[in-house]
Amino acid sequence: MTDTHNDCVFCTLLDGRVAATFLHRDERCAVFMDIRPVNPGHVLIIPVEHAPALADVDPETAGHMMRLGQRYAAAIRASGLRCEGVNLLLADGEAAMQEVFHTHLHVFPRYRGDGFGLRFGPHYAAQEREELDRTGAMVRNAAAALEE
Amino acid sequence: MTDTHNDCVFCTLLDGRVAATFLHRDERCAVFMDIRPVNPGHVLIIPVEHAPALADVDPETAGHMMRLGQRYAAAIRASGLRCEGVNLLLADGEAAMQEVFHTHLHVFPRYRGDGFGLRFGPHYAAQEREELDRTGAMVRNAAAALEE
Repeated sequence: MTDTHNDCVFCTLLDGRVAATFLHRDERCAVFMDIRPVNPGHVLIIPVEHAPALADVDPETAGHMMRLGQRYAAAIRASGLRCEGVNLLLADGEAAMQEVFHTHLHVFPRYRGDGFGLRFGPHYAAQEREELDRTGAMVRNAAAALEE
Repeated sequence: MTDTHNDCVFCTLLDGRVAATFLHRDERCAVFMDIRPVNPGHVLIIPVEHAPALADVDPETAGHMMRLGQRYAAAIRASGLRCEGVNLLLADGEAAMQEVFHTHLHVFPRYRGDGFGLRFGPHYAAQEREELDRTGAMVRNAAAALEE
């Protein structure tokens, strides 16, 4: 049973209210073409259950998203489309560039000179071990607390 | 048994030849701090078996990388470090910005005004359905061929 949401654009694709180019669908996930590809061949992998944030996806489904990401990365490479590399990208939250609030994993082909890239903030630089140990302990402790 | 490679920087971290700030290690994967964080709290998730490309990672391990990605995204959010969103990024191949050829999933916190972002090539634009159906069929056929 898919829990679709009327006001979610990806749910309108999943339940057929709006056209999309689907490549795959199983019990947990669906794969379809991004309407605005970084490069031709760009697919999105989504849970079929509506899940606004990554934390809303059950862990097995999150794992399946990546198994499909791996499979479709290989498929894009083998497709005949221009592809010299592949990026997988997930944006969780508006501050992380998430635009559709139904969790999705981007998988898109890359080639030299395609014009896509990253830009970094002014503080992007190698850190001292002491600082990495300090911030790492904060994340490690938070992960341990989440396990309890 | 971990198959480490002498000339792989991540393998030198895994086998303790070079210092790193590890947060987690299990049979399949390890999590440690990126020495050059996009923002403080940036972790890398890697298979413990040396795997230069995503295609070299066994699918269950790829799935586990994402389950850990989900867990550490939540941990970064709960850590007290500045975090309003999280990005997960995997670069497969030099043309996709891979720099260390031991597959790794980046998980890093984001906040408004952090200066990180994406730049897009000149052809980045919404595509017609006919074109999405054409390129989608190429990827779908390639995926089916890989399954055989």
